[in-house]
Amino acid sequence: MSRAPQIPKIVVIGGGTGTFLVLNALKKHPVRLAAIVSMADDGGSTGILRDQYGVLPPGDIRRALVALSQESTSLRKLFNYRFKNGDIGGHSFGNLFLSALEKIEGSFERAVDEAARILNIAGEVIPVTLDNVRLNARLADGVVIRGETNIDIPRERTRAPIAHVWLSPAGSLNPRAKAAILSADMVVIGPGDLYTSIIPNILVSGMPDTLKKTRAKKVYVANLMTKHGETDNFSGTRFVEEIEKYLGPRIIDYAIFNDKKPAHSVLLRYEKEGATFVDPKNADSALSGTICIFTDLLARGPFIRHDHKKLSAALLSISKK
Amino acid sequence: MSRAPQIPKIVVIGGGTGTFLVLNALKKHPVRLAAIVSMADDGGSTGILRDQYGVLPPGDIRRALVALSQESTSLRKLFNYRFKNGDIGGHSFGNLFLSALEKIEGSFERAVDEAARILNIAGEVIPVTLDNVRLNARLADGVVIRGETNIDIPRERTRAPIAHVWLSPAGSLNPRAKAAILSADMVVIGPGDLYTSIIPNILVSGMPDTLKKTRAKKVYVANLMTKHGETDNFSGTRFVEEIEKYLGPRIIDYAIFNDKKPAHSVLLRYEKEGATFVDPKNADSALSGTICIFTDLLARGPFIRHDHKKLSAALLSISKK
Repeated sequence: MSRAPQIPKIVVIGGGTGTFLVLNALKKHPVRLAAIVSMADDGGSTGILRDQYGVLPPGDIRRALVALSQESTSLRKLFNYRFKNGDIGGHSFGNLFLSALEKIEGSFERAVDEAARILNIAGEVIPVTLDNVRLNARLADGVVIRGETNIDIPRERTRAPIAHVWLSPAGSLNPRAKAAILSADMVVIGPGDLYTSIIPNILVSGMPDTLKKTRAKKVYVANLMTKHGETDNFSGTRFVEEIEKYLGPRIIDYAIFNDKKPAHSVLLRYEKEGATFVDPKNADSALSGTICIFTDLLARGPFIRHDHKKLSAALLSISKK
Repeated sequence: MSRAPQIPKIVVIGGGTGTFLVLNALKKHPVRLAAIVSMADDGGSTGILRDQYGVLPPGDIRRALVALSQESTSLRKLFNYRFKNGDIGGHSFGNLFLSALEKIEGSFERAVDEAARILNIAGEVIPVTLDNVRLNARLADGVVIRGETNIDIPRERTRAPIAHVWLSPAGSLNPRAKAAILSADMVVIGPGDLYTSIIPNILVSGMPDTLKKTRAKKVYVANLMTKHGETDNFSGTRFVEEIEKYLGPRIIDYAIFNDKKPAHSVLLRYEKEGATFVDPKNADSALSGTICIFTDLLARGPFIRHDHKKLSAALLSISKK
């Protein structure tokens, strides 16, 4: 007698467009998805709402909700709609939605649940913490930068490398995030901005221990390109090493690297923004505790992005191991 | 053999809190409801959205949608939620919702339909016109006031009575409003601000003819109190006469007047705002073409409002005639 194969439970940890991409890639497959999302964002529409209305940051949560929504196109479009000019110019409608709901419900968590219901999402979207946290960074030259956006978007043309990041307050892990990780079959970390989208999740008190404790496979998806002011000239190895600095050693079971170099003309365009190709070379010998997977993950087109199908195939093949 | 009684189709014409009240009163009964709503509003959150984003006025539509929504309390609360202070201060969330949807859908009508679907409304909400109309008034002293809000909220302590109101452009009747009126069993006009909520519907080109043509009973619900700057010292008769000035004579089949005077202490409070009791006396002899109904419609409590149960009883008894 053969047993029916179990539907794997996959938890995606991150924030921003990288997580949006992984959720979109995986949701077409028979998996149960939960997204655990950074709460450090303090820029743009989200930053204004935090400052003016004292709400928790809605931006990354909104993107994850939209990714998992099974609702009509127009409701999903509405959530991502951004008002142009005027009083409300720059605000994303979905951010206003979550912030108004938070005010009505009296809790960000209930607001997210209600929005999830309205958007009819397949899966779960979980704020990594329900504490009002801010991200800080100390650079190699001792300068301290406060606020996720100030770290994300360097004000100077050049600045010293990031030496250390931390949350204030530290924030404690949302119990629902903990439960999701402990019951998962696979945890996917990244891709996404290393210090401003990925590590802010790991910094939350209780996250490293929970990732140590879970029996889920922990998979890191490396970025395709470096980011100016955050990960200048980082190799593939370096991304994993930085995460392990905060997470502890030998916790990442798998790391997936793209080994297909984009066309020279495309790379030149990115280099103007200070972004270079993340070279995965020798990652397997440098990262002794991690199984490294090197494969073509590149999407076609003028932008350097992960391809949905290639990425989900790589993730699902690990899930089946 | 007896035939099952047909569910009556009732169309409510107006805008603002009066229409919200009638919809709330009738929705508990076995009737099919459609709300036809004025599109002249240009004040507050609605006015800013019209000016800054070039959208049609969402405020009155929002109130009607919320009244007919069968959704969870929090979604209905969300639609009526108003942001306090900050950039978005004063904006109603539902207005932002409709305006963003209009931008995405490319049409106000489709935005209203999509919002109706999301709010799971029992019935229909129909903008009286899809043209971008503005309300104007000429006072008895010749002064012309442009804009619904400027008419609604007098800037001077006293001003000459309103002699004439018109829309620019005139605006043509929404075909769906026409169809709803022609297939209705009863059309309820009012209560509501005479010149700024009720008559702006009648001013739309095609509305008087459609109300003449329909076999539905046309019922006017008179206001309980006069409004400073609009209907100072108006008697019950005068309200109907003003409507017939724009609608044509002998079209209103029934007029429902409250004949229960509020307590003296309550009236004193209203008189400070320039509002006096609408006296229904002798309306029946003055309005020869209209059947006048005089009854207690007053709600309990510190505010002078129509009582849900009394009003729906009065309306349904006419519907059964």
